Amino acid sequence: MNIRPLTSSSVVWHHATVTRERREKLNGHKSCVLWFTGLSGAGKSTLAHAVEEHLHQRGCRTFVLDGDNVRHGLSSNLGFSEDDRRENIRRIGEAAKLMMESGVIAMTAFISPFRADRESVRNLIPHGDFLEIYCKASLETCEARDVKGLYKKARAGEIKNYTGIDSPYEAPLKPELVVETDKQSLEHSVAAVLKMLLERCVYASAYQLPR
Amino acid sequence: MNIRPLTSSSVVWHHATVTRERREKLNGHKSCVLWFTGLSGAGKSTLAHAVEEHLHQRGCRTFVLDGDNVRHGLSSNLGFSEDDRRENIRRIGEAAKLMMESGVIAMTAFISPFRADRESVRNLIPHGDFLEIYCKASLETCEARDVKGLYKKARAGEIKNYTGIDSPYEAPLKPELVVETDKQSLEHSVAAVLKMLLERCVYASAYQLPR
Repeated sequence: MNIRPLTSSSVVWHHATVTRERREKLNGHKSCVLWFTGLSGAGKSTLAHAVEEHLHQRGCRTFVLDGDNVRHGLSSNLGFSEDDRRENIRRIGEAAKLMMESGVIAMTAFISPFRADRESVRNLIPHGDFLEIYCKASLETCEARDVKGLYKKARAGEIKNYTGIDSPYEAPLKPELVVETDKQSLEHSVAAVLKMLLERCVYASAYQLPR
Repeated sequence: MNIRPLTSSSVVWHHATVTRERREKLNGHKSCVLWFTGLSGAGKSTLAHAVEEHLHQRGCRTFVLDGDNVRHGLSSNLGFSEDDRRENIRRIGEAAKLMMESGVIAMTAFISPFRADRESVRNLIPHGDFLEIYCKASLETCEARDVKGLYKKARAGEIKNYTGIDSPYEAPLKPELVVETDKQSLEHSVAAVLKMLLERCVYASAYQLPR
């Protein structure tokens, strides 16, 4: 590589030479954004982390953006108003895009209830690289799980604008994948995600579907 | 791995099993944040991208956050007021932290003129993983380069609060590295950054200093 010294006053060499394509080649797999959406309790985080474990064991670079690492960080100055929730999803979309450009299979696990917000993120990302995975489970199932105890609080009116209770969830119209987390096991859901990634040539690896 | 089916109503398996340490092991190098700071025209982006090229050729996972990919994305809804510039640096810090956690050597190339803002980012990141690199060049040199023609506009009063003209640049007091970009060649600056990374065991590779 020919690097001109910066001591010249005419230097403008500045641009990136390491591209997404070179990073993918180094990693041995493609990068993309896996966008998990669904009600609270539908199993988005659980599924994303299980998919991550499998991909990592197969040598893939991965990262899961979720409430734990985003709400205390990038979105720590946002609340839960309509505007703030929209801005939260926007920032997550931009962060996932940057991670994808860095060569990582970026996964996001947020309710992201509004179709328009998810479509905005889809439009940020090159066609085919945004894969929307709808974690479908009935409100009854999610409310019965109530892992964080938030449905109970929402029913009691202690939390406002809780998705599924007093705020709508807009199911995806054309998601790349639907996993019915109240009907199939976690292992089957993981297998369905990995099958989609194999079919889309994100990575190449023999993976046995669980019997 | 033992995955419990999500059909159980008692499922709470949710946490991340793929850690930063496992990602670093897969990559064969450590991750960190390289924070390039200095006046406009001091060569931050040029140096960061040149360092990235060298690291990539040595098999390292890298990414450069700069004005091109941040101001049109994550910070597209921010202007240049004092508050917005602070929030811009905060978001960049959080994004760099997430990238570092994903196993990437994250580099940032922003003027980031205020000591307090840079210290805030340093405090987000585990001790020793935030490496501040001061790209030191005289205002005269930077203004003479004026790659983007912005110094001229600032002198003419067409741009307000331009760092170095009518807004201060607070030089780092204890940066991990100083590169005097108006006195040393780009290759020597790159070599100084790589030497620091080798000494800190971020990666291991025989690298020949340019003669």
